[in-house]
Amino acid sequence: MSFRNFKMVSYVVYGRGSFNQLDEILAPQRKTDAPIIFLVDHFFEGRPLLNRIPLRGKDKIIFADVSYEPKTTQVDALATQLKNEFGTISGIIGIGGGSVMDLAKAVSLMMTNPGSSADYQGWDLVKFPGVYKAGIPTLSGTGAEVSRTTVLTGPTRKLGMNSDFTPFDQIVLDPELTRDAPVNQRFYTGMDCYIHCIESLEGTFLNEFSKSYGEKALQLCQEVFVKKDRWNNESDDQLMMASYAGGMSIAYSQVGVAHAVSYGLSYLLGTKHGIGNCIVMNHLEEYYPAGVKEFKHMVEKNGIEIPGGICKGLTDEQFDTMINVSLGMKPLWENALGKDWEKIMTREKLRALYGKL
Amino acid sequence: MSFRNFKMVSYVVYGRGSFNQLDEILAPQRKTDAPIIFLVDHFFEGRPLLNRIPLRGKDKIIFADVSYEPKTTQVDALATQLKNEFGTISGIIGIGGGSVMDLAKAVSLMMTNPGSSADYQGWDLVKFPGVYKAGIPTLSGTGAEVSRTTVLTGPTRKLGMNSDFTPFDQIVLDPELTRDAPVNQRFYTGMDCYIHCIESLEGTFLNEFSKSYGEKALQLCQEVFVKKDRWNNESDDQLMMASYAGGMSIAYSQVGVAHAVSYGLSYLLGTKHGIGNCIVMNHLEEYYPAGVKEFKHMVEKNGIEIPGGICKGLTDEQFDTMINVSLGMKPLWENALGKDWEKIMTREKLRALYGKL
Repeated sequence: MSFRNFKMVSYVVYGRGSFNQLDEILAPQRKTDAPIIFLVDHFFEGRPLLNRIPLRGKDKIIFADVSYEPKTTQVDALATQLKNEFGTISGIIGIGGGSVMDLAKAVSLMMTNPGSSADYQGWDLVKFPGVYKAGIPTLSGTGAEVSRTTVLTGPTRKLGMNSDFTPFDQIVLDPELTRDAPVNQRFYTGMDCYIHCIESLEGTFLNEFSKSYGEKALQLCQEVFVKKDRWNNESDDQLMMASYAGGMSIAYSQVGVAHAVSYGLSYLLGTKHGIGNCIVMNHLEEYYPAGVKEFKHMVEKNGIEIPGGICKGLTDEQFDTMINVSLGMKPLWENALGKDWEKIMTREKLRALYGKL
Repeated sequence: MSFRNFKMVSYVVYGRGSFNQLDEILAPQRKTDAPIIFLVDHFFEGRPLLNRIPLRGKDKIIFADVSYEPKTTQVDALATQLKNEFGTISGIIGIGGGSVMDLAKAVSLMMTNPGSSADYQGWDLVKFPGVYKAGIPTLSGTGAEVSRTTVLTGPTRKLGMNSDFTPFDQIVLDPELTRDAPVNQRFYTGMDCYIHCIESLEGTFLNEFSKSYGEKALQLCQEVFVKKDRWNNESDDQLMMASYAGGMSIAYSQVGVAHAVSYGLSYLLGTKHGIGNCIVMNHLEEYYPAGVKEFKHMVEKNGIEIPGGICKGLTDEQFDTMINVSLGMKPLWENALGKDWEKIMTREKLRALYGKL
């Protein structure tokens, strides 16, 4: 098809305190004995949110260590563990940032699809719908709550299980849940949204659907990180909508240089997506002059430190690995630089860019 | 639930020319012998769009006369006709404005639910999912493409079949299809979106989800009707997204005075929704001063004539009917005027307003 037929999330609830409706929302999804699994960001270990999770019967909370980007091996291990313990489950609920939500989506799919999640990295390779899955963001910015992918680092590449079976059946958007996020992490994740708005709005793939969403997401990011002088409830409300709109804008657009370069960092060094994008964006004046200027202003205004020198001491072979991963993201480069992107972003030029990070 | 759990349309395709993908989109929905019914606005009789409808097997085009607002009797007659002719159908595709899309949704539901559509006017009364249904707008502004209702005039009221089974399985947003709409109708329908943005953004029910969508829809309406000096492709693109965003904004908001008053006109006089809203909005300075000022500017700038004197010569009994229908729309009045709305909008005041229209 010339235009992507975009599969939407089935149900959306938005509101401060809407997390309290979770028990009621899940009730119709429970299948006799099969439990619901709550996959929760390890950040919440020992925190009060756990007591608000509506556990029933054999339901289980599993903490997900998301210090690094999600891996296909991690997905496979989780699915195997659940199959061994319960045979089947009624559903899986991801509570956390983009990594936890992506893990939950991938585990849902691997409860019903044979083999390894690595077999399904790519477009429309997933064969069967997964078990019921819901996403509850506790960090805003990735757009993973509405995306049709689940980004995973596999044995040979970092690539999602991109399919119509991948989007959540339900998302619960409760801005209260993002209130206690660490300031730096909140910024990095928020910038994931900001950066992909810049990349898609400046890209060559845009249409009015994606433009409308992208512009709204960008404006909300600016409200939060440029206009406001201190964080308040409205900041959480707005950034949650920015993330949602930014995710929707991806339907007919694509990210660009920052994401393409950052994927190399994640693959080699395990650099988390949000901070990785920030590290790269800091050096992209040549490609996004206005966006990078505003980005630097936001970094300063919000008192954030962007790490530098992370590629220091890497071997030529390691640089080559990053360059290969990055140049493999062809649609991102084409969106950013047009059809002739390979003439513009040569290996040498990319090597020099990585050298600066 | 305190916060509505909003059922989304399952699939969205957006793009100029995306109508050409319809055959491919419908293929997986075809059930052996059961036809797909294309319910098409009578405006398209004899027009080239008909030749682009991908008819197969026993598929049938039915023209819908939407000179007046859709009626429950019309829905029941269509469903009965289809059951008598085909037993069952694979799906129904509404191609037209809000009336045609609402008719298609309602007929889909009445293919599987017993009794009359009038039995289901209200909230969550529909018992079974309908047959597959898709909406293809050829006029932008109503938001019917994403709503969970289907507004019908029944024996005792004008009220939708509001349920989780009501939203479309698929919408095809192809701005090329709105290009040939008559200028006046295009304006009235566009104003449906503009007016409900004003009503929801000025209302008391808003949250950030609905605010984000409402602001974007409003801005797009302003681009089209205030900023631009002549209609072009981008106008169609933008107004189609305005309609979509305006419809989404209804999730956590509500319309207000113009819609509440206009419902009385539709019920008694069969006044179409778009033009009815315009006739009322023209006299609402007291409630929406800035919005009405901009509305009047748009009317003038776009060379549109808003009818007047439509209530001239009505009897007291007829005024009473309109007043009863209008005051029955309690959530609309509460959104517009707050909890004490009954003290503000008295029967006398509303009578005076109807007298001016």
